[in-house]
Amino acid sequence: MPQKVRIALDAMGGDVGASVVIPGAAISLNRHPDTEFLLYGNGALIEAQLAAHPAMKAVSRVIHTDVAVGMDDKPSQALRRGRKTSSMWLAIDAVKKGEADVAVSAGNTGALMAMARFNLRTLPGIDRPAIAAVWPTLRGDSVVLDLGATIGGDAHHLAALAIMGSAMARVLFDLERPTVGLLNIGVEEVKGGEEIREAAELLRSLNLPQLDFIGFVEGDGIGRGAADVIVTEGFSGNIALKAAEGTARQIAEYLRSAMSRTLLSRIGYLFARGAFNALRGKMDPRKSNGGVFLGLNGIVVKSHGGTDAEGFAYAVDVGYDMVRYDLLTKINQTLNRHGHTLAPASAVQEALS
Amino acid sequence: MPQKVRIALDAMGGDVGASVVIPGAAISLNRHPDTEFLLYGNGALIEAQLAAHPAMKAVSRVIHTDVAVGMDDKPSQALRRGRKTSSMWLAIDAVKKGEADVAVSAGNTGALMAMARFNLRTLPGIDRPAIAAVWPTLRGDSVVLDLGATIGGDAHHLAALAIMGSAMARVLFDLERPTVGLLNIGVEEVKGGEEIREAAELLRSLNLPQLDFIGFVEGDGIGRGAADVIVTEGFSGNIALKAAEGTARQIAEYLRSAMSRTLLSRIGYLFARGAFNALRGKMDPRKSNGGVFLGLNGIVVKSHGGTDAEGFAYAVDVGYDMVRYDLLTKINQTLNRHGHTLAPASAVQEALS
Repeated sequence: MPQKVRIALDAMGGDVGASVVIPGAAISLNRHPDTEFLLYGNGALIEAQLAAHPAMKAVSRVIHTDVAVGMDDKPSQALRRGRKTSSMWLAIDAVKKGEADVAVSAGNTGALMAMARFNLRTLPGIDRPAIAAVWPTLRGDSVVLDLGATIGGDAHHLAALAIMGSAMARVLFDLERPTVGLLNIGVEEVKGGEEIREAAELLRSLNLPQLDFIGFVEGDGIGRGAADVIVTEGFSGNIALKAAEGTARQIAEYLRSAMSRTLLSRIGYLFARGAFNALRGKMDPRKSNGGVFLGLNGIVVKSHGGTDAEGFAYAVDVGYDMVRYDLLTKINQTLNRHGHTLAPASAVQEALS
Repeated sequence: MPQKVRIALDAMGGDVGASVVIPGAAISLNRHPDTEFLLYGNGALIEAQLAAHPAMKAVSRVIHTDVAVGMDDKPSQALRRGRKTSSMWLAIDAVKKGEADVAVSAGNTGALMAMARFNLRTLPGIDRPAIAAVWPTLRGDSVVLDLGATIGGDAHHLAALAIMGSAMARVLFDLERPTVGLLNIGVEEVKGGEEIREAAELLRSLNLPQLDFIGFVEGDGIGRGAADVIVTEGFSGNIALKAAEGTARQIAEYLRSAMSRTLLSRIGYLFARGAFNALRGKMDPRKSNGGVFLGLNGIVVKSHGGTDAEGFAYAVDVGYDMVRYDLLTKINQTLNRHGHTLAPASAVQEALS
């Protein structure tokens, strides 16, 4: 029997904290009984929740701390005040020390990324980290990255994103060689910034066995499922994600108001309730909860701060999968073999001087 | 009675050409009888369409040319082969020569932008053009730009986009002082690239009477209608637009499949047919057809290539409004008064040396 998956939880993270984190983790534990938890945060609050979840209590160890990072703390503030003491830091530190395989937090993204980067450091060959998440598409799920960790980046950065994202897709979707597309504003070779065209050339010339580079994908290709992995720098990735979320909310609002407009439409709604429930399931943002920080010496998963227990459970599931199917090993194998080709020119010069 | 609005049409533009362009223009003419048309393209094809639209024929002049820009021609190709001869060029040239007030084409975007830029040149104070369009939101309509004309750009470019976009919003929405937001990956002051933070400072310090700068807006703020005008450089603007379009198509597909799933849901659909039609109307992409090229010495409107007559009519409507409510004058007034503050540092140095 394989080793258990050891998950460190920031029990204070998110808009609500322990009353979402513990019940959420309990749901995930039910799906993956081979999990153990380290719970960081206010001991009394955590124990109160554990009392209602005996199965969870049986596989958890509680580590008390009074310090919690606020949802509005700036990253620098969080580091100054919460380093070595906050529940968020301690959960990440458990990964650093090898006491946990992955840390999951619903705390604020900037603080979590700052602490993860500061404590875990970037992988050899990786300059800057990324956030990746699962995006539901018409063809199934895709991995999209970077969703906002790093603004801009050259061709080497984009190629590194392709390698890390495809490792995540191999883990999550059990694919041998996921297809990878570069997000661009046209599919023709002449479009896009120079770094994107260079990244396309680089990925073509590398011709990696771990991924199948298919070229450029436009914004509407994401929802169509044009590739298993969609790669872009963090600004446009974040804009794409939020523009899509905004559109989904907008249409849900139109639909709600259309269905309650007339007596006939309300009757129609009653008949079609099952269909609307299925639609709601398809569009449930909780199911794509769980942003994975990539490019660090350890795995950290970010849950939405405002999610409920069901949503938090999905983020814990993502963390479980990343560990159980060896995300870091998969990334490192590719980087070790091809990392030299990815090193930006400046770093190469540095190494030679 | 004010002068008629004179519209030059590239009758060969789009996937279909004259058989969409002429019937589409006829629909718009019906809404705005004070319009005249110059029709550029194959005379026989155009006359065949006009025979079916006598009101349109009465206000149109046909200028024959055999040359048409192909939908897949590269901009450089189109310029080389179609300069001075193609229907697209001639429509733009009519604006240049003052024979028309606006040109409308459903031809390929790259070629149209290249020809418009080459022939009309940018406005004094404007380095690079932009494409703006109307984005339906929960609060009404917003103007979003740049949708892909220019990749990147400094703070001055973003401020110029804000000025041009707010002029368009004043024209279209009849607002005194539209609210303007800068698209960013967070609403905090510390987020985003340097040029975006600088643009925010610049717009705050200018405190223009023509627009009300409200700060940063995230991607999901567009659909919420967070500002009347959303400003971003062309790469992320294009990604946002297409990610939203892709999501809308995706949800429409989910909805279709959900409603045909069971007998009950099909019955429900019949009862709620009126509601679904209303929803379809809300989501009709034809209603936001018509991208306006901004920053040139003349107005050019780009219609989607694959639209039908109804959709093309909306693009002609947009062109009509831009002329009738004096878009160019409104832009130039602001630029003349504040253009010096917007000139990028390099241009200022050039002028002084």
